[in-house]
Amino acid sequence: MRDPYVRLAHGNGGRLMRELIAEVFARHLTNPLLDVGADAASLPQTSGELLVTTDGFTVKPLEFPGGSIGSLAVHGTVNDLAVAGSRPLYLTLNAFIEEGFEFAQLERIVADMARAARESDVAIVAGDTKVLPRGEGGGLYLATTGVGVRASTLRLTLNQIRAGDVLLVSGPVGDHGTAVMLAREQFGLRGDLQSDAASVLPLAQAIWNLPGLRFMRDPTRGGLATVAHEIARGTRMGVRLRGPDIPVREPVSAVCDMLGYDALYLACEGRVVAVVAESDAQAVLNAWQLLPQGRDARIIGGLKEGRAQVVLETEFGGERLLDELEEEPLPRIC
Amino acid sequence: MRDPYVRLAHGNGGRLMRELIAEVFARHLTNPLLDVGADAASLPQTSGELLVTTDGFTVKPLEFPGGSIGSLAVHGTVNDLAVAGSRPLYLTLNAFIEEGFEFAQLERIVADMARAARESDVAIVAGDTKVLPRGEGGGLYLATTGVGVRASTLRLTLNQIRAGDVLLVSGPVGDHGTAVMLAREQFGLRGDLQSDAASVLPLAQAIWNLPGLRFMRDPTRGGLATVAHEIARGTRMGVRLRGPDIPVREPVSAVCDMLGYDALYLACEGRVVAVVAESDAQAVLNAWQLLPQGRDARIIGGLKEGRAQVVLETEFGGERLLDELEEEPLPRIC
Repeated sequence: MRDPYVRLAHGNGGRLMRELIAEVFARHLTNPLLDVGADAASLPQTSGELLVTTDGFTVKPLEFPGGSIGSLAVHGTVNDLAVAGSRPLYLTLNAFIEEGFEFAQLERIVADMARAARESDVAIVAGDTKVLPRGEGGGLYLATTGVGVRASTLRLTLNQIRAGDVLLVSGPVGDHGTAVMLAREQFGLRGDLQSDAASVLPLAQAIWNLPGLRFMRDPTRGGLATVAHEIARGTRMGVRLRGPDIPVREPVSAVCDMLGYDALYLACEGRVVAVVAESDAQAVLNAWQLLPQGRDARIIGGLKEGRAQVVLETEFGGERLLDELEEEPLPRIC
Repeated sequence: MRDPYVRLAHGNGGRLMRELIAEVFARHLTNPLLDVGADAASLPQTSGELLVTTDGFTVKPLEFPGGSIGSLAVHGTVNDLAVAGSRPLYLTLNAFIEEGFEFAQLERIVADMARAARESDVAIVAGDTKVLPRGEGGGLYLATTGVGVRASTLRLTLNQIRAGDVLLVSGPVGDHGTAVMLAREQFGLRGDLQSDAASVLPLAQAIWNLPGLRFMRDPTRGGLATVAHEIARGTRMGVRLRGPDIPVREPVSAVCDMLGYDALYLACEGRVVAVVAESDAQAVLNAWQLLPQGRDARIIGGLKEGRAQVVLETEFGGERLLDELEEEPLPRIC
């Protein structure tokens, strides 16, 4: 019979660690490339350019409406590859587990991760687990690295962007940040808002060979405003966002008003921001709106010669500078 | 002027995070493939089979005689690729930093990591940082994933091993575990023992095309005894170790006697255990002993048909079963 909680000995390299890996991780994540007895996994020969990305995950609570740290880790890594124009193939996984963590919850999270990996058609090919002494962890942290193969024929980088290009977002912003906030007991709020956490591969794939596409990014930590700042800084041009055109769900606005947050700075985990030549903007919009996760896609602004800053056009013709995110940390949001 | 300590806002996706990444990580780890503005790094085309491995690092103290968590993370990942018969090429890095961590120490650790990467000729091509609230971390945890290209012409797996094969170790065991233990204040002991943490690539490379080579592993968590158990379990044969032939440094024996540890279970971070056909055992020994890090290499035992167990031959002709590691966790040893 297994302990109900993870113990330090589950991280010592011996029998208990072997069982933890076999019974929890390998059992759910099993695939032909994962060999828990090997030091390294061999990747099948792939023709094409490989891309690699890596991410840490510390979200709290570990399970939230719409996902868990397990599915988030898969989606986050898949999404970074997708917006770079590549098809995700393989993931590696590191788990840092705090002593005393409940096995039942660990199982749920690993199963959720396995489901997300299957849905995104990626294989988790290598992993490692460490157990942290009680009080030196936050329950569970994950780190994933993803390998993908270039599928877009375009170079999707900031320096492809030209003045006059158009910005689009694939759906409402701030759902993930708001859903996670609401799921924290400290806020004493409950809502039926779900995180948007999901694979953006279908959204990226739908447009990644449109000749006018310049650049894509998934607006995670720091939200849409932070992506807009990256674009302004990377292009040395001005980004103009049309506030009334940016989709924000009603409960997200309400929570932001109540708690003093701005939805434009809140994390999304299933959205794409695309920069595209004006001539292809409608094509992106059409392609996205055909997909269930792109139904609320909008054209939200554009690029302009001039100062590298982000200007938000407000209702009734006003405008204001959107600052780069400074304080207001919302720790462990992703 | 920068804060002397990491704050939560260094993890929020905004200006401070950007500066942390640029000024600490990118500055030390700079290389042509690392682009902190991209979601994914493109790997140059490589001909040959790619291998991938991943590891988490939680060693405490973060700096110890002979290394730091930074160099350990590079060496640990390089070593997993090397013993699998591949030449390490690229690493990715995740850093989980606790609020309040001192920037000066973070700089030292990242610089140490950069030095280890240069020495092993690997490039850190992608990274991510998260900041954990005070009390939800242990200072600093790292996770690295490594990509290498197969260089050995042999399949180095447990099922290549045959009865009559011979076990060798490239140097004294237990140095890392003992050095880290001594560096912890709780033990109140000081010694001049250094961790053996280092790249084992030269050791692996020196023998990885010898036709009689079957398998290599670096004995980290759980030490030599744990590798012996993996071999016994994986081959369903008996492993016999000749105790008097296993190199253990005098201060390691002394500390183990004092604290009740067995050096055979203590982590090494710069050693290789090789299994080889008897006819090539001397060739491995000769090749290793030519290298400075292999001077103390020894033939330490062999494989025998029969029960899958590990037998330790003691001095004066005795023998005892070496159990799989159960309790006695020494947390955060690597």
